[in-house]
Amino acid sequence: MDRVLLGHGSGGKLSQKLIDGLFLKKFGNKILDQLGDSAILSIRAKKLAFTTDSYVVNPIFFQGADIGKLAVCGTVNDLSVSGAAPLFISCAMIIEEGLDLKILEKITDSMSAAARSSGVKVVTGDTKVVEKGACDKIFINTSGIGIFERDIELGTRRIKQGDKVIINGDIGDHGITILTERRGLRFKHKIKSDCAPVNKLISQVLDFGVDVKFMRDPTRGGVAATLNEVVRDKKFGIVIDEKKLPVNTAVRAASELLGLDPLYIGNEGKVVMFVSGRSADKVLRVMKKNRLGRKASIIGEVVNRYKGEVCLKTRVGGLRLVDMPSAEQLPRIC
Amino acid sequence: MDRVLLGHGSGGKLSQKLIDGLFLKKFGNKILDQLGDSAILSIRAKKLAFTTDSYVVNPIFFQGADIGKLAVCGTVNDLSVSGAAPLFISCAMIIEEGLDLKILEKITDSMSAAARSSGVKVVTGDTKVVEKGACDKIFINTSGIGIFERDIELGTRRIKQGDKVIINGDIGDHGITILTERRGLRFKHKIKSDCAPVNKLISQVLDFGVDVKFMRDPTRGGVAATLNEVVRDKKFGIVIDEKKLPVNTAVRAASELLGLDPLYIGNEGKVVMFVSGRSADKVLRVMKKNRLGRKASIIGEVVNRYKGEVCLKTRVGGLRLVDMPSAEQLPRIC
Repeated sequence: MDRVLLGHGSGGKLSQKLIDGLFLKKFGNKILDQLGDSAILSIRAKKLAFTTDSYVVNPIFFQGADIGKLAVCGTVNDLSVSGAAPLFISCAMIIEEGLDLKILEKITDSMSAAARSSGVKVVTGDTKVVEKGACDKIFINTSGIGIFERDIELGTRRIKQGDKVIINGDIGDHGITILTERRGLRFKHKIKSDCAPVNKLISQVLDFGVDVKFMRDPTRGGVAATLNEVVRDKKFGIVIDEKKLPVNTAVRAASELLGLDPLYIGNEGKVVMFVSGRSADKVLRVMKKNRLGRKASIIGEVVNRYKGEVCLKTRVGGLRLVDMPSAEQLPRIC
Repeated sequence: MDRVLLGHGSGGKLSQKLIDGLFLKKFGNKILDQLGDSAILSIRAKKLAFTTDSYVVNPIFFQGADIGKLAVCGTVNDLSVSGAAPLFISCAMIIEEGLDLKILEKITDSMSAAARSSGVKVVTGDTKVVEKGACDKIFINTSGIGIFERDIELGTRRIKQGDKVIINGDIGDHGITILTERRGLRFKHKIKSDCAPVNKLISQVLDFGVDVKFMRDPTRGGVAATLNEVVRDKKFGIVIDEKKLPVNTAVRAASELLGLDPLYIGNEGKVVMFVSGRSADKVLRVMKKNRLGRKASIIGEVVNRYKGEVCLKTRVGGLRLVDMPSAEQLPRIC
């Protein structure tokens, strides 16, 4: 049998076979192996981070990653930007009847590799199979638990005038990859998703005792949505500098062709950090030593003007409003 | 605008509107209101339970409950049967473009009511909208965190000869409700789902200091799957008594008509408890005082014979093997 059947989600013999033959083999660890209704976790912290995300990306395989890697990295990153060390994740799959079992195995392999590289364990899971046509191939939900090892206080309330905005590299790679692949476009220079776990990069920065005020991963809606969420109802504004925005040449070309602005395009291996003016250069130096931060850049500053707004200082010296994205640019990019 | 649009899942203005106008209004609490990438939780225990489940039930509204209530109760129950007190849940929705916003509101109301009645908080969430035809109306994932307040050790390894098997009421109600509604069947006596949170019932039992060895909620695959999972690779068997199995008259009639055995049908408000022989009567008495345990019954016993197998003592005195369900009886019952 080489395809997923409805019975694989029934709770019966076929479910057992899938769990024993695939999930335990790929994800197996002492906690998951118990196969209880819940995973039992020992926790050595009083403060936890808890997050959830469903992944419905289309296509499920793309340059640089696939839905499995994305599902692990996305949740690891959500925990990490809260200042927590990610430890445990869940994996709940909704699979369309008829999916090739080899595809499921490949996705599970990606999840397993991403979990290993980011140091998290898959400790609990669920599999539902729906009839053909009731979902598109596979959707994956991962929820995650992290612990606060540091006595760190993060929040937009800590942001003030003079703080710097730093990003760890090129923007727009993930969303543009998905969009060009979906449309079957090809470019001279290969474009690939930036999908990666940023927990170690963040940990390295925090280890330096720098004054980080707030972090967020600029996924759906891109850097534009992230910055707009930060300034919303605030007494400050943000000015970002177009010249400092790291954009890969191929991504820039593809964006222009498609009439899209990389500022609004989702990323999956990026963190936007707000740090004190004093700490900015140090953070930049630490980031640049990490493979995922080589193209890190101070892209902007928190200002007392333009309250509640994000402005872009353009290449030619003008100033343009960067509004909250109003409509869906890219459905199912994650 | 009265329908869900792709933009409601974009991370932009429409997403904000949905979060502020619906989810915060219905689920709002101090933790969720922070709207961070992760919920920040204070935990006063060293041992946690963590679980996840996706709900793809079809139809989404049915007698006795809907997908929203089911999504909360299912996860509350998974935590509870581990012996944990459920505290926090996540809510991740995958919505088909075009879903009536009133339906979404009704489902959110159900989730909110179920969360209140079981004493859990919805602390983090995610919304994805996929294009028409890419999913069937709405799928909901809930993950949950519970804490161990009691020094309790549960596990199939603690089960031994002479232990009793107890269930808190009628079996098969949920699955038969879904199936008859899906087929448009009507019966003289109304059949409705047993969907309910069993955390308080379990807590009342444990408060009595009785010797509970293991618990599980008999969902997919029904009581048959639950008992078979317990005996798998074990040196004991289980004999259940058909006369003691509580089955609602209408459910029995519908099952016979459909050629189904209630033993194999999923429940959503039931717990199967393995308790020491000494404790059984006491557990039964405690259960019967709770509305959800009025029809509680000692349905069977752990025996030294029939190793690794579940047997049913039939009404006429015969003995029949209750095998693990091998194929899908009811896709999308939860």
